[in-house]
Amino acid sequence: MAKGIIELNSGIEAAATVVGKNEHEGPLGSCFDMHDDSDYFGTDTWEKAESEMQRRALSLALKKASVGVDGIGALYAGDLLNQCTASAYGLLEFDIPFFGLYGACSTSVEGLILSSVYQSAGYAEKTAVVVSSHYCSAERQYRSPVEYGAQRSPTAQWTVTGAGAFIIGKGGKAKIRAALPGIVVEKGINDASNMGAAMAPAAANTLSRFFAESETSPRDYDLIVSGDLGYEGGAILCDIMLAEGKDIRNNYTDCGMLIYSKATQDKHAGGSGCGCAATVTASYLLPKIESGELGNVLLMATGAMMSPMSIMQGQAIPAVAHLVNIRTAR
Amino acid sequence: MAKGIIELNSGIEAAATVVGKNEHEGPLGSCFDMHDDSDYFGTDTWEKAESEMQRRALSLALKKASVGVDGIGALYAGDLLNQCTASAYGLLEFDIPFFGLYGACSTSVEGLILSSVYQSAGYAEKTAVVVSSHYCSAERQYRSPVEYGAQRSPTAQWTVTGAGAFIIGKGGKAKIRAALPGIVVEKGINDASNMGAAMAPAAANTLSRFFAESETSPRDYDLIVSGDLGYEGGAILCDIMLAEGKDIRNNYTDCGMLIYSKATQDKHAGGSGCGCAATVTASYLLPKIESGELGNVLLMATGAMMSPMSIMQGQAIPAVAHLVNIRTAR
Repeated sequence: MAKGIIELNSGIEAAATVVGKNEHEGPLGSCFDMHDDSDYFGTDTWEKAESEMQRRALSLALKKASVGVDGIGALYAGDLLNQCTASAYGLLEFDIPFFGLYGACSTSVEGLILSSVYQSAGYAEKTAVVVSSHYCSAERQYRSPVEYGAQRSPTAQWTVTGAGAFIIGKGGKAKIRAALPGIVVEKGINDASNMGAAMAPAAANTLSRFFAESETSPRDYDLIVSGDLGYEGGAILCDIMLAEGKDIRNNYTDCGMLIYSKATQDKHAGGSGCGCAATVTASYLLPKIESGELGNVLLMATGAMMSPMSIMQGQAIPAVAHLVNIRTAR
Repeated sequence: MAKGIIELNSGIEAAATVVGKNEHEGPLGSCFDMHDDSDYFGTDTWEKAESEMQRRALSLALKKASVGVDGIGALYAGDLLNQCTASAYGLLEFDIPFFGLYGACSTSVEGLILSSVYQSAGYAEKTAVVVSSHYCSAERQYRSPVEYGAQRSPTAQWTVTGAGAFIIGKGGKAKIRAALPGIVVEKGINDASNMGAAMAPAAANTLSRFFAESETSPRDYDLIVSGDLGYEGGAILCDIMLAEGKDIRNNYTDCGMLIYSKATQDKHAGGSGCGCAATVTASYLLPKIESGELGNVLLMATGAMMSPMSIMQGQAIPAVAHLVNIRTAR
């Protein structure tokens, strides 16, 4: 296939996060900007709550970047809800050219790539990305009514209630220097309770291509972090990479492993959802990149592209993994 | 808001269309590349049929452009199905970096803009866009089981069974010279059987901004064509524009009005769906632009961004309209 890595020259000028109760109670709780212990954010449905998280995340990111709506040339947004309504409704009040995305849980990095392309190429001074997920809106759409209390498989992940927003521009102490968009990969996994296994091959595909094309190896990076493979998918990714001669075990982690406590929060295989990579990156990783503690990071968000309908029709789960290389500004 | 028009320099090197029975029987029937009178395209479900249409459309477009998968740097795709599965499954066999989009029925032009940005800025030699819709898969997802035979409102539109694919590059006789991404607009319409009324204000917003920013007027264009406002929405758009002093009635049409015969096909307010603007543009408008018969066209695809859930929760319908200016190469 064609060489896929593209060089970019955009910075993350500001970022903001809004999360729910579980995320606030987790190990990164103090890193997030806002939370609501009711998970309703002042609305009367979970879907509206998710929209409201997006609205608050973008509002706060704009404020942090000291930029108004007029200063943003394009907005890239997406979520997991059918027809991506969390974004369409949540961002209505912002009169910004709107590109709706669907990349399942990979949407945050898909948005970072496309917004950086637009900004780096000079089509806008600044752009923005907003993504979200909500445990309750996702649960009832993809699985069972929340009230039903269905037993969860050990390989199941917990959808993060959270929204993250990023402002992309020339400034910022964290620079998006390169990107590798993912290709859709399907390796026969059809267990909708094991997204990690479905997504790991896509992550391995992207990571292998990145190392090969860039002629770098895992040790060249301070951290290699996936979006939400969780414990199950993360272990599979490490195994696949090891079999290919690339040992990432010493400097690899996953946003889905970071967001909840394994010891005190019963979240099985870890966190997932568009909001997982977005909130962990924006609140926890970004400050470390900005300070230089993590000078050179590969961030790879993964998404499982199936639907309840495609699973019912017996189809396996396609997945995609988008990668950006973020470095401390020098 | 920020000035939104961007200048582009991409060409449509090839395009291909795959449609169903009704579309083949319509006035543009002979323009489409392929059709299947069963609407199943050799598969056993409507959802798989929609994926298969995408697969065939891209395959044929690549063949027409004499380019292999290796020659395409990025693929932009979307559809109306929950989680955009028509694209994820339909394009699995193509190892091309994949950007999933959700813009409802505006996805074709959203894809043309983003793929042209990527190509014009030099991130890839060539890019591709594929979108689809299928009457039966849309009907059971958004409305009623097809077998139920629910009575349709006069303002209701008929989802086009069709997929369109475009190859974007330096060549081609039709050039994408400018674009204006839409902003999300919601004017209180909450009748899910009247998408035209919900989308017309978004179309008017984009068109007005385009005329204002470009300092042009309707008479500067050979044709102003919307994606799928249909008869209802198209009339509303003309009224809004007239009230703003821009009379588009003499050179305006809509893909949803063109694809079915009002006299012999009972499609109420006209066609809709991602496949509507895509197939009409690719099969009918593009040859006229390439030949110079239509030298300067404004193509504006419109999308209604609600979901069945958002309608059930009493929310009005947000909409977006993305615009590209396509001109004959000189």
